[in-house]
Amino acid sequence: MKDVFDKSSVPSPLERVKERLTLVKVGGKIVEKPESLNRFLAAFSKIEGYKVLVHGGGRSATAMATRLGIESKMVDGRRITDEEMLKVVTMVYGGLVNKQIVAGLQVLGVNALGLTGADLNYMRSEKRPVTDVDYGFVGDVKEVNAGILSDLIAKGVVPVLAPLTHDGAGNLLNTNADAIAGETAKALAKYFEVRLMFCFEKRGVLLNENVEDSVIPALNLELFKKYVAEGIISGGMIPKLENAFEAINAGIKEVVITRADLIHTNGGTKICK
Amino acid sequence: MKDVFDKSSVPSPLERVKERLTLVKVGGKIVEKPESLNRFLAAFSKIEGYKVLVHGGGRSATAMATRLGIESKMVDGRRITDEEMLKVVTMVYGGLVNKQIVAGLQVLGVNALGLTGADLNYMRSEKRPVTDVDYGFVGDVKEVNAGILSDLIAKGVVPVLAPLTHDGAGNLLNTNADAIAGETAKALAKYFEVRLMFCFEKRGVLLNENVEDSVIPALNLELFKKYVAEGIISGGMIPKLENAFEAINAGIKEVVITRADLIHTNGGTKICK
Repeated sequence: MKDVFDKSSVPSPLERVKERLTLVKVGGKIVEKPESLNRFLAAFSKIEGYKVLVHGGGRSATAMATRLGIESKMVDGRRITDEEMLKVVTMVYGGLVNKQIVAGLQVLGVNALGLTGADLNYMRSEKRPVTDVDYGFVGDVKEVNAGILSDLIAKGVVPVLAPLTHDGAGNLLNTNADAIAGETAKALAKYFEVRLMFCFEKRGVLLNENVEDSVIPALNLELFKKYVAEGIISGGMIPKLENAFEAINAGIKEVVITRADLIHTNGGTKICK
Repeated sequence: MKDVFDKSSVPSPLERVKERLTLVKVGGKIVEKPESLNRFLAAFSKIEGYKVLVHGGGRSATAMATRLGIESKMVDGRRITDEEMLKVVTMVYGGLVNKQIVAGLQVLGVNALGLTGADLNYMRSEKRPVTDVDYGFVGDVKEVNAGILSDLIAKGVVPVLAPLTHDGAGNLLNTNADAIAGETAKALAKYFEVRLMFCFEKRGVLLNENVEDSVIPALNLELFKKYVAEGIISGGMIPKLENAFEAINAGIKEVVITRADLIHTNGGTKICK
């Protein structure tokens, strides 16, 4: 029989006041097309409790750059952001994509507020130092002002974060959306019990990549290492999951990898301690 | 001798709690060039007390449309906004211009927050009905949610409003920046003692248009009518001033017409009751 006075089941005062917040990262492939974006937004609007959305937009930026006759230069899948490309990503991420998402969420009763790191000075970054590669106007996250975000969230506002930050010296910087999602989630973990969700083209991490139904429901570090050793988890999924475990170690309650149109369900792969 | 108990000099409780707010409208000509924009932002940052900035961006949008091979169609100086042009203004107003202003203000210690009407659902509009002219995706302001703006302002946030609104059905609409400035000022007059400033290429309304120093310091309706009758005030300045008097009648304390780099000084032409 369970001891009703077992102290381990009594949450600490801090834990007790923390409410659940879901932070979803959605990539450029889904936000590029109105159909997939709208399906995603409908699913996002159904998530209960506090929430935050971080979006990419790389494909839309590449398409706009091409129309403007600007070449998209990539090194190892990372964009080189020269002055002209910075204007393109500022327009596309901060304007076109962000505001279409905000307007689309308002119809669904979600009180969205589109932000770059410069807005409310919520996220500062540092221009990435030039080593072998000069990435140009690309920022590595340095500081998250989570207090101002958490105040808005507690009032029912849903921040929609574009992958742009600022250096505090007047320059906007192109910033990886996964990094923004991870750093924001970690900073908000002080105020909320944060669940971080990454949208993926599959239903989750699969035991057999050809069988969509073979989703691994939960992964801890031990199981992850076992699957990697057995070759069940391989390729690009390995760094993705390593990042997820890093987030868990930094105070995030749970990381979920699932399909964009299923984020409101309880499916996908849950990464936990 | 003045009667110290003269009731007319005692402010009502509501007036007593109202603090001063300056709402500045700046046009596309000034925001287009980094030099004039930075001079303007420096002056704006020096305005004391609560403040709001409304910006245009028509020239930047026209330039971007040209680069994209999209023709800018105008009727009586008003832009026709078809689907392609709506994308351009969403990118340019909501992204490029708005975020450059926000990042530029953060350097100056101004906690700016860039907004379109869709963000926080702060301004809804209605697509302009088709009459002789089909203006396309152009919105006429219908509703201002000033409560959420005033809460942010009272916390020291400086809203930077792009000339874009939404219809609440998922569509962004291109909206005249003067209209946004006027409607926002009127709605905020419930919470603040609002001063509305329009930036102009001259130091104010001039007695002699060739003499920059001949600024008319103050104009009431009577004086305005006299100057119009005498031909001192003519042309495009007449509807500008009529709008200013309309704003005064709608509860705005003072309207000022001055030069963009002088908004922090006490100059310009003051329009008052």
